[in-house]
Amino acid sequence: MVTAQKVPAIINGVNVDDLFTTIDAVKATPSIAKFRFRIHNQWQGASRNHSTVDSYEGAGQQHSRTTPFVLEADEPPVLLGKDSAANPVEYLLHALVSCLTTSMVYHAAARGIQIDEVESSLEGDIDLHGFLDLDQNVRKGYQGIRVTFKIKADAPDERLQEIAQLGARFSPVFDSLTKGVPVSVKAERF
Amino acid sequence: MVTAQKVPAIINGVNVDDLFTTIDAVKATPSIAKFRFRIHNQWQGASRNHSTVDSYEGAGQQHSRTTPFVLEADEPPVLLGKDSAANPVEYLLHALVSCLTTSMVYHAAARGIQIDEVESSLEGDIDLHGFLDLDQNVRKGYQGIRVTFKIKADAPDERLQEIAQLGARFSPVFDSLTKGVPVSVKAERF
Repeated sequence: MVTAQKVPAIINGVNVDDLFTTIDAVKATPSIAKFRFRIHNQWQGASRNHSTVDSYEGAGQQHSRTTPFVLEADEPPVLLGKDSAANPVEYLLHALVSCLTTSMVYHAAARGIQIDEVESSLEGDIDLHGFLDLDQNVRKGYQGIRVTFKIKADAPDERLQEIAQLGARFSPVFDSLTKGVPVSVKAERF
Repeated sequence: MVTAQKVPAIINGVNVDDLFTTIDAVKATPSIAKFRFRIHNQWQGASRNHSTVDSYEGAGQQHSRTTPFVLEADEPPVLLGKDSAANPVEYLLHALVSCLTTSMVYHAAARGIQIDEVESSLEGDIDLHGFLDLDQNVRKGYQGIRVTFKIKADAPDERLQEIAQLGARFSPVFDSLTKGVPVSVKAERF
């Protein structure tokens, strides 16, 4: 006897059935949508430090990784470091583009839009007059960031812009970075 | 014949002589303060992508790394990924804390404040009702981020708070994330 088995719909590598199941689960139990992400960082002297990424809360549960991820940071020599790792403002660009890409790919999948290839280039400008406290009118952070996506999809040019804008519309990091986030900083004794 | 040699002042591992030389150089030639950071990202299907971190402009020159840094990104299973790397919003926390730490350490060094040890913990809240487009009133990004530093330094408690606030005052990522950055997103055909 042959039993019909439902094949999950996979678009852009994303299991769209699971995506809609997640959406239905959140509609049924809104509290499972609350996520809390965490990291722990240790200074290693001068411009070097590393973060350990392990546990997070979400979908009503605590989760942790079998092996925590370790993210290093350093500065290049011109910024008085040893260049042993990407620097913090480069990590910020990675956080932004990785989130834009995943958000675009997931939301395209939910709309049945197939994407074949994606690459992107980012650049952002910082004027050290801010960080070095030499000019109060120059901000410490990025003055602007430009993201250029290259997308291969069976779609006309104007549709490509719409696909890319799905990332900007839904990305948590894009939202955080463009609109700003309240950040509290406190210190305790060791 | 014995010649007196100047020993560079090293505080917190930072060469403070080089730091003040940099400040003097920027005062003399303001254009060298302009930095442009770049990354290139490639989608690897579904929730996976990676960035290559290589060249940047600064101090009036183009620079590139001997071996580019590669930063991976993925999502955990509960967010439909394979959990092969930290996710974008965790990278954002790493960008923030690594920048806060380095900014604090450099600016403490410039003030002659010796720091012996630094660790920090971060947590940030995201409600998926935003990303999943289920509630227009819920933002896509972080609702708030809390940073707690543990600092070992020969200083009274109130001074520890001042040291930690040096990070918040000067960090380019803290400034970018709390005040917001204009980000343009465009798409081209492959």
